[in-house]
Amino acid sequence: MKLNPHISVDCVIFGFDGEKLKILLLKRNISEDGNPVSSVDYKLPGNFISDEEDLNTAANRVLKDLTGLENIYLKQFKVFGKPDRVSKEKDLKWLHDTTGLPIRRVVTVAYYSLIEINRSKIELTGNNKAEWVSIEEARELAFDHNDILNAGLSTLRTKLQFEPVGMELLPEKFTLRQLQTLYEIILSRKLDNRNFRKKVLKVNYLTAMNEKEKDVAHKPAQLYSFNKELYLNNFIQFEGFQF
Amino acid sequence: MKLNPHISVDCVIFGFDGEKLKILLLKRNISEDGNPVSSVDYKLPGNFISDEEDLNTAANRVLKDLTGLENIYLKQFKVFGKPDRVSKEKDLKWLHDTTGLPIRRVVTVAYYSLIEINRSKIELTGNNKAEWVSIEEARELAFDHNDILNAGLSTLRTKLQFEPVGMELLPEKFTLRQLQTLYEIILSRKLDNRNFRKKVLKVNYLTAMNEKEKDVAHKPAQLYSFNKELYLNNFIQFEGFQF
Repeated sequence: MKLNPHISVDCVIFGFDGEKLKILLLKRNISEDGNPVSSVDYKLPGNFISDEEDLNTAANRVLKDLTGLENIYLKQFKVFGKPDRVSKEKDLKWLHDTTGLPIRRVVTVAYYSLIEINRSKIELTGNNKAEWVSIEEARELAFDHNDILNAGLSTLRTKLQFEPVGMELLPEKFTLRQLQTLYEIILSRKLDNRNFRKKVLKVNYLTAMNEKEKDVAHKPAQLYSFNKELYLNNFIQFEGFQF
Repeated sequence: MKLNPHISVDCVIFGFDGEKLKILLLKRNISEDGNPVSSVDYKLPGNFISDEEDLNTAANRVLKDLTGLENIYLKQFKVFGKPDRVSKEKDLKWLHDTTGLPIRRVVTVAYYSLIEINRSKIELTGNNKAEWVSIEEARELAFDHNDILNAGLSTLRTKLQFEPVGMELLPEKFTLRQLQTLYEIILSRKLDNRNFRKKVLKVNYLTAMNEKEKDVAHKPAQLYSFNKELYLNNFIQFEGFQF
């Protein structure tokens, strides 16, 4: 497979494990001053595209090769092409050491996905030390990967306003408290309880079940479920312009 | 300016002139068999990026250089990178003749914009024979530009469901008939009159004026205006999840 050193793909894979919003990262060994591993940092799963493949194919191939993840929904969300995005000495050296390719300027196409880590029983099978790292801990990533992660996060937060992203990440039956916690985690701030309930209960695709929490120390809370079909209808209705 | 022959930008500039949805295209002279202009076709305004510039800068520069258009809102919407997207003989020859660059594979970042052709008093000042061509007439464009145009059109139609794109393209005061015509033009199909009115009148950011049409042969219709402020509020309200 002949790699194209001008164009790469990078994958921002968000994961939720019921408690934290995480990001799938690869450990990178930096060799300096003749020391084979003088430091370690993290990067997004990504690589150059090959000459024969389309961008989407490349993103799926790279993700599978590096982390073992496959058959997940990957969405192109932005292209990063600042002329100096690959210019730090340690990044250039690492690229040279790992690819042997002549690197000048690299434009990267960023993809994202959102995964429920536990429910989907994901196994990371790559040999590349892929890890789920909590968002707060993903500091000082390689290249401009912090910019890419932030843009991905911002895409996710916008999506949260249009689509019931959160509800799909929760168990089939959930409490409003669980839903609020998920929103607080993704938005990274506390929300007003009363306000949250008021707004959330306005949407008709959140269905109250004939059921309450069981085996809890506190007063059992009402359980809800997400009615995807109703959501899709509601959504179209709102638009007013879907004729 | 040193061009990077691996990455280009292409601009899908939609224009509405009150009657038709148009697209801004450039005429391309094809020379074959020693004949300097043996045929003519159309392409989207686009070019390679230069080594020193970011993608957005490149898109604005290319559009200005080729058509004279500047200071318009350009939005990245998709990247096109099929391995064989630049492989037709006439495309390769044209690129060779016009750029002199060694061309192998080109990944292009597509941008789009929507312009009210008359109101914005746009002057096309480039020397490149830029023209507004109606969408139906934009057949058999160069490279994969029909795919890019179609993806842009599909983006525009989706946007139409989320944002009052149409209302911003109409005069300050408009009739529901004008609005419906605009939607029919962008969606490229007839809409049911009653259904359209019913759906459109549901949104509170469409304000009925204390005014009717003047100097018309038929019964004067009610005039409406688009209340952008109310739209923004309404939009957020609907979301339910904007805390």
